[in-house]
Amino acid sequence: MKPNTHALTGFMELLPQQQQEFDRILAIISDEYQRYGFTPLDTPIIERTETLLAKAGGETEKQIYRFTKGDNDLSLRFDLTVPLARYIAEHRSELVFPFRRSHIGKVFRGERAQHGRFREFFQCDIDVIGENNLSINYDAELPRVIFAIFKRLDFGDFLIKVNNRKILTGMMEQFGLAGQTQVIMRLIDKAEKISREDLISELKDLGIEQEKVDSLLNFIAISGMPADVIKSLRNLNFTNETFLVGVSELETVTNMMAAMDINDSNYGVDLAIARGLDYYTGTVYETYLKEYPSLGSICSGGRYDNLTSYYTNEQYPGVGVSIGLTRLFDQLTELGLVSAGRKTTADVLVIPYSGNELGNALKIADQLRGAGVNTDILLENYPLKKSFRYADKLGVKHVIVVGSEEIKTGNYTLQDMTSGVKQNAPIDEIIRTLS
Amino acid sequence: MKPNTHALTGFMELLPQQQQEFDRILAIISDEYQRYGFTPLDTPIIERTETLLAKAGGETEKQIYRFTKGDNDLSLRFDLTVPLARYIAEHRSELVFPFRRSHIGKVFRGERAQHGRFREFFQCDIDVIGENNLSINYDAELPRVIFAIFKRLDFGDFLIKVNNRKILTGMMEQFGLAGQTQVIMRLIDKAEKISREDLISELKDLGIEQEKVDSLLNFIAISGMPADVIKSLRNLNFTNETFLVGVSELETVTNMMAAMDINDSNYGVDLAIARGLDYYTGTVYETYLKEYPSLGSICSGGRYDNLTSYYTNEQYPGVGVSIGLTRLFDQLTELGLVSAGRKTTADVLVIPYSGNELGNALKIADQLRGAGVNTDILLENYPLKKSFRYADKLGVKHVIVVGSEEIKTGNYTLQDMTSGVKQNAPIDEIIRTLS
Repeated sequence: MKPNTHALTGFMELLPQQQQEFDRILAIISDEYQRYGFTPLDTPIIERTETLLAKAGGETEKQIYRFTKGDNDLSLRFDLTVPLARYIAEHRSELVFPFRRSHIGKVFRGERAQHGRFREFFQCDIDVIGENNLSINYDAELPRVIFAIFKRLDFGDFLIKVNNRKILTGMMEQFGLAGQTQVIMRLIDKAEKISREDLISELKDLGIEQEKVDSLLNFIAISGMPADVIKSLRNLNFTNETFLVGVSELETVTNMMAAMDINDSNYGVDLAIARGLDYYTGTVYETYLKEYPSLGSICSGGRYDNLTSYYTNEQYPGVGVSIGLTRLFDQLTELGLVSAGRKTTADVLVIPYSGNELGNALKIADQLRGAGVNTDILLENYPLKKSFRYADKLGVKHVIVVGSEEIKTGNYTLQDMTSGVKQNAPIDEIIRTLS
Repeated sequence: MKPNTHALTGFMELLPQQQQEFDRILAIISDEYQRYGFTPLDTPIIERTETLLAKAGGETEKQIYRFTKGDNDLSLRFDLTVPLARYIAEHRSELVFPFRRSHIGKVFRGERAQHGRFREFFQCDIDVIGENNLSINYDAELPRVIFAIFKRLDFGDFLIKVNNRKILTGMMEQFGLAGQTQVIMRLIDKAEKISREDLISELKDLGIEQEKVDSLLNFIAISGMPADVIKSLRNLNFTNETFLVGVSELETVTNMMAAMDINDSNYGVDLAIARGLDYYTGTVYETYLKEYPSLGSICSGGRYDNLTSYYTNEQYPGVGVSIGLTRLFDQLTELGLVSAGRKTTADVLVIPYSGNELGNALKIADQLRGAGVNTDILLENYPLKKSFRYADKLGVKHVIVVGSEEIKTGNYTLQDMTSGVKQNAPIDEIIRTLS
């Protein structure tokens, strides 16, 4: 019996025409990251388990791919942020701060198989890391990059939601719920996914009295333009220090986002954004496609002031965002928002008419490639009809047949495979057409 | 105690300036692969162990990273060729043959830690796969791509060595050594790394008589221009059919390589090239930097006619080459043949003179980015001296300071950080300078 050749469940494997579309999106993200001066980095996929799990909680530990090799307890990275914290601690004396880096790579989580969930997926991250401190201004710059990317990707209208965890933490302290901050934060984070009744009953299950539940729900429902939300928050007259710092940070961030020319309609404050991961300490973001809220957040992140503290005693506060590209691509494909690309990167297929013209056809291909034109040459000795069938199936844009007549006259025919239009000209002219 | 933050032994981790150089080389390889019409593909890093090991021998099984998750026996891919064979078997009805694909990705081998050996490393592969059969012409096209790449990478003079395993197999049959083909092939493959005496004694240990050992050594020492080697081989008057087919294939491939304008000095026949992997069935290649033969082969590959047979009963012969980039990069760095790049992808750093100019500085940065200029902006409120120290340490090429005077006049100063040359002009003109 032959072994199973399906890719494992939860592992994406694309056909060439899908891969090209995936790569096109990836290239736009990478290009914008560089445009904003985020320098690409890479770290190993395999790390010491003790290093990766220095911070992580129970969910992560269950999902992680962990194994031993020789005497080593090893794991596959489950995100790119923890390896970044380790990298900073390790190389801090050789880096320049504020340190801006991008990282696009695969991460691994052995989650329960579920529609739209992946066990191996690409994350596309940018982070800015400061030494000792990092200006709050950077918290506004990251959504600016995200704005530029989703504008350019053109998947429809989108909304970057911003909040600050200090506001939530402070509010809960103000309500006398300080001991339950983390667990309430996780419930708030789920608020969009469960019914209001379920949220209320889960809050009550924590032993929170009705009055405080109402206050909580009223609080996270505060909405409006950023300036209005901030005014409403100030009007609550809370005295909690953390809360007040959070409101002031949120004000700076949203003012800066406006100064950075992010369209009004593409961002807003949402006090129900908490982010499950408990390493966030201030600003948090999530991004939604307005027409497809069911996709959930397609790009998330936030400020983390203490992540490197697991690896070094120095302070390296950071802020970052991440696009989970594999899941996004899968969902967009299902929605028909990305269409298949071509099956080949070649712009031209050169077809030698017969074995006699092979040498000349190779030289034509050479010239095209030398001029920067992506060129495929058919090296099978097919009848012409079969050669054109190959070109057709491949979806290549142009074909040049090299026959004895072409070689004699020095005029070649560039045939557009879609329109059928033919150009008969010397190869230099054909190159100009293709460039 | 803080966890260990070193990358594991055998895992490459680069500083930003090294990473940029690594990425530059990777981009050239990727670009040339596309120029020749090889379409990028990706497959999962994790595969079923039974699938990955369907073919592999003892060495591979020892080196592989293998683990269980739930009920699954899983492994990390140890090359990109076996996953390709699986991919072809799985998706064959949706692919167009001859199928040209490139794959650049990480593979994993838990080898014994050793200088210059990596456990996680990038392979950069191209392969052409035929349905039922594949013209020998493609065996000549792959070295053409390798030629183009190493020309462009400019690491010095290089030599692509070609051979055909049918010649070696047939020669051994002719000598009556048919039963020992594989083991002799592996010894021949080591011939450059061990002394002639050791080779002779290892051959004798196999029970091969002195006369045949001499014949073998004389055979693999045959050298000269490809046409001369082929003449010498024909003059041996061997009658073995496999041998004769091999000689004829080698003749076609070397003739085609000449027709493809690969420089004479950049390729040659070497009858001692056998390639350890026993899935090769015909043409084999290795590539050497002439001034650094101790690096060993920096790019290898060959023809494999039966690799997919482990996964499907249809025939999909293929030919491919692979550049082991991580090891190559490491060695070139040691030799001083690659130098560090810059620490940033940004071409310009915009520095707001103070908090008052922040909004205007952001708009300047926006304009630069909109025009395609990679731009970093310093969002910390540093004194000017400290800002310039940051620019200096970062190694950014240009700086623009945005102060009240600049905002008033609309003239900004672009300062070249290397030459110190300053251009005072409206931002449009500065953009033209930078583009």
